Amino acid sequence: MNAENNSKDTGTSTALMTDMYEYTMLDAALQDGTAGRQSVFEVYTRHLPAGRRYGVVAGTGRILDALADFQPSEDELRFLSDRHIVSQTTIDWLEHFRFTGTIRGYREGEIFFPDSPILQVEGSFGECTLLETLILSILNYDSAVASAASRMVTAAKGRPCMDMGARRANEYAAVAAARAAIVGGFQGTSNLLAAKEYGFKAIGTAAHSFTLLHDSEREAFQGQIQALGKGTTLLTDTYSIEEAVRTAVEVAGPELGGVRIDSGDLGSLAQQVRAQLDSLGATKATITVTNDLDEYAIASLQDAPVDSYGVGTMLVTGSGAPTCAMVYKLTERENSDGVMQAVAKKSVGKASVPGRKLAYRSYHNGVADAEHVISGAEEALAAYKPEQDWRDLLVTYVDHGQSMPEYQGGQAVLDAREHRAKALEEMPINALSLMKGEPVLPTLVRSI
Amino acid sequence: MNAENNSKDTGTSTALMTDMYEYTMLDAALQDGTAGRQSVFEVYTRHLPAGRRYGVVAGTGRILDALADFQPSEDELRFLSDRHIVSQTTIDWLEHFRFTGTIRGYREGEIFFPDSPILQVEGSFGECTLLETLILSILNYDSAVASAASRMVTAAKGRPCMDMGARRANEYAAVAAARAAIVGGFQGTSNLLAAKEYGFKAIGTAAHSFTLLHDSEREAFQGQIQALGKGTTLLTDTYSIEEAVRTAVEVAGPELGGVRIDSGDLGSLAQQVRAQLDSLGATKATITVTNDLDEYAIASLQDAPVDSYGVGTMLVTGSGAPTCAMVYKLTERENSDGVMQAVAKKSVGKASVPGRKLAYRSYHNGVADAEHVISGAEEALAAYKPEQDWRDLLVTYVDHGQSMPEYQGGQAVLDAREHRAKALEEMPINALSLMKGEPVLPTLVRSI
Repeated sequence: MNAENNSKDTGTSTALMTDMYEYTMLDAALQDGTAGRQSVFEVYTRHLPAGRRYGVVAGTGRILDALADFQPSEDELRFLSDRHIVSQTTIDWLEHFRFTGTIRGYREGEIFFPDSPILQVEGSFGECTLLETLILSILNYDSAVASAASRMVTAAKGRPCMDMGARRANEYAAVAAARAAIVGGFQGTSNLLAAKEYGFKAIGTAAHSFTLLHDSEREAFQGQIQALGKGTTLLTDTYSIEEAVRTAVEVAGPELGGVRIDSGDLGSLAQQVRAQLDSLGATKATITVTNDLDEYAIASLQDAPVDSYGVGTMLVTGSGAPTCAMVYKLTERENSDGVMQAVAKKSVGKASVPGRKLAYRSYHNGVADAEHVISGAEEALAAYKPEQDWRDLLVTYVDHGQSMPEYQGGQAVLDAREHRAKALEEMPINALSLMKGEPVLPTLVRSI
Repeated sequence: MNAENNSKDTGTSTALMTDMYEYTMLDAALQDGTAGRQSVFEVYTRHLPAGRRYGVVAGTGRILDALADFQPSEDELRFLSDRHIVSQTTIDWLEHFRFTGTIRGYREGEIFFPDSPILQVEGSFGECTLLETLILSILNYDSAVASAASRMVTAAKGRPCMDMGARRANEYAAVAAARAAIVGGFQGTSNLLAAKEYGFKAIGTAAHSFTLLHDSEREAFQGQIQALGKGTTLLTDTYSIEEAVRTAVEVAGPELGGVRIDSGDLGSLAQQVRAQLDSLGATKATITVTNDLDEYAIASLQDAPVDSYGVGTMLVTGSGAPTCAMVYKLTERENSDGVMQAVAKKSVGKASVPGRKLAYRSYHNGVADAEHVISGAEEALAAYKPEQDWRDLLVTYVDHGQSMPEYQGGQAVLDAREHRAKALEEMPINALSLMKGEPVLPTLVRSI
């Protein structure tokens, strides 16, 4: 987000958005001669949040932005040196640091499952190890929000969902959340910085404070309409909703844009307000509901005359799953003879699958039926021929240090939203269920 | 965090870390003449997360940092104008914007309850309304993390807790989380940017990838010790823990600093590893455990020979409560006659308490027994005499636009940690219970 602000002397780059051990491992590896070993790291998750049927990848475009800014400033290098976190050898190495590796992975908006190789980062151990925390921070949070958003959008059955969650997330995370919400199928955001950075539709109504500020509700509505036009959305639950709706139509006339309800039993209130609006001739005025909505609350409102949903807390906190459990694991590396070898840890309950991977989705009668993860040596994978109707799930994000511009910026987010919609359409119908259950596709991992 | 990066032309300030409605309300209020009305906004929460006994305030120091940077850049003003979010009158007003109001509130590290007036922001409606989302974003996230951290620290009974959660939070939120963890009683963080920004102790061990990178575990341990000294902490669960511990002591000798265990049944493994270390003469080597710890897991390890806890996911996601439910409500404002009036909305289930507030804590035999919130007109509050042993909970953070430096920077975070420890000591013993229950103090709200 702040690429333009980074300066070589005092700026904040993304290079210290890491855990200390990444720098100390780099330092030790530079000293014992292993830092240059060619390595493949993989991002994947061992499990989805309990009961979830699928996840939605988000954040990869932001990784490319963060990479562009991953050069420690002089100030940051001084910190690493003054605190004796790394030796002078490493400071020298970092002065010229630029990621020259290759990153492949699932598209933004792609559906993922346990063991999906969401991202693979290939380069020297030194350059890849530095990116661990930053990549995980971005993917874990953004994918948590996009995955929750996607369920809400499904529950909304075509009615627009809008992000209003900024106040319930860290102020920077809020911008990422707005972006991830769009990936997950949302239509707009109340967050201005996100709207500016990515060109998103910005939305908003008014707070209760605006009504309270004025000597009467009528004066508040008049003030809002004067400034924003009759198409604006008026907040109606500061005092009596019935009175507010009457006043709203009196002030705006039947051209009133809409009203927002932010408390009470939203379903029955929406019925009452719709009837009242219609009786007053404001048949085109829309009803927006807000107030701690989640996918279940949205689903319960499907018969209520609601036109759009403003979602806050539960969106930006991943609706019960505020982070994904994605990890970043070394799966292949050069040995002392310069030969690439698959590697894996054996920790109890946390063993990893060795080797670099390909990933495909197979279909039966047009419906996805399995995820195929093929692991093997580079040459074996290059020669591998998938079944004809399998869809290749991997794209190249960074090729030898060169980021692909089509995955960055606001258009990439809209592309990701479209991709999510298509990928979800291909899934078994169970994917759309809010009932707790198993992942809708099995992931079949196999070595060649 | 990026105050130094802001430039008047292209920089990112904190001024768009808002919901759009704050700017449209400002615009409407400037046009109808109400923007200049003197106003008091209050931050409070209607409830704690289910079952929690208390919360810990965190983030106020960061609000002061964010305020210093709350001037829209030219680029941001252009966005507001090009998108027709506000009128030219408002653009002109924003060009000279500087917050000139007053902010009072609970100290960082203070214990809070439902209805505690955590922050009160006083100034013109226009300047105060712009800060709503930014203030809530900061307080809601930081206090969620500090509140969870505080429970973990209590459960750890004096053993140090370390933040290792960066990878499970947005990359900027991770820095705020590290800071909030310290407020909540943590001793250090793995996050380098937080360590740099606030001067915190940086901690870390090594990842499994470092062991896997080398041709043998022995070579990995040798490399790490070569670079970091024998006092380093070696990760022992990549292959066999028993073998790793033997190798660790062989390589480092009895001066080995410590080992980390990141999988399996941590309690019984810690017992085994302690016995093995002792039998090998490494009696001073410490044991750090990690792996999805929360306050309950930490409590269950109190009899295990563990020296420190590395906490990740559950810390930075607030251990089940990833945000607080704090809101920002107008409680008093000037009417059209220039007279200050208490105001409150009446929304179902979300009614607010009108008027500006004082807040005190009372004690019985040295133990806190109630929170007293006194609301009233400015003059009445100025004349109010609390009971002699009541502790005044409010401090002034910003006085007519002037921020108090003692609440900013790294030392303020350490002061907040100390304040939390003292404030928690004064609480009824139930505050330390991890059992679900009611807030340990009642909040008695009264108008004068």
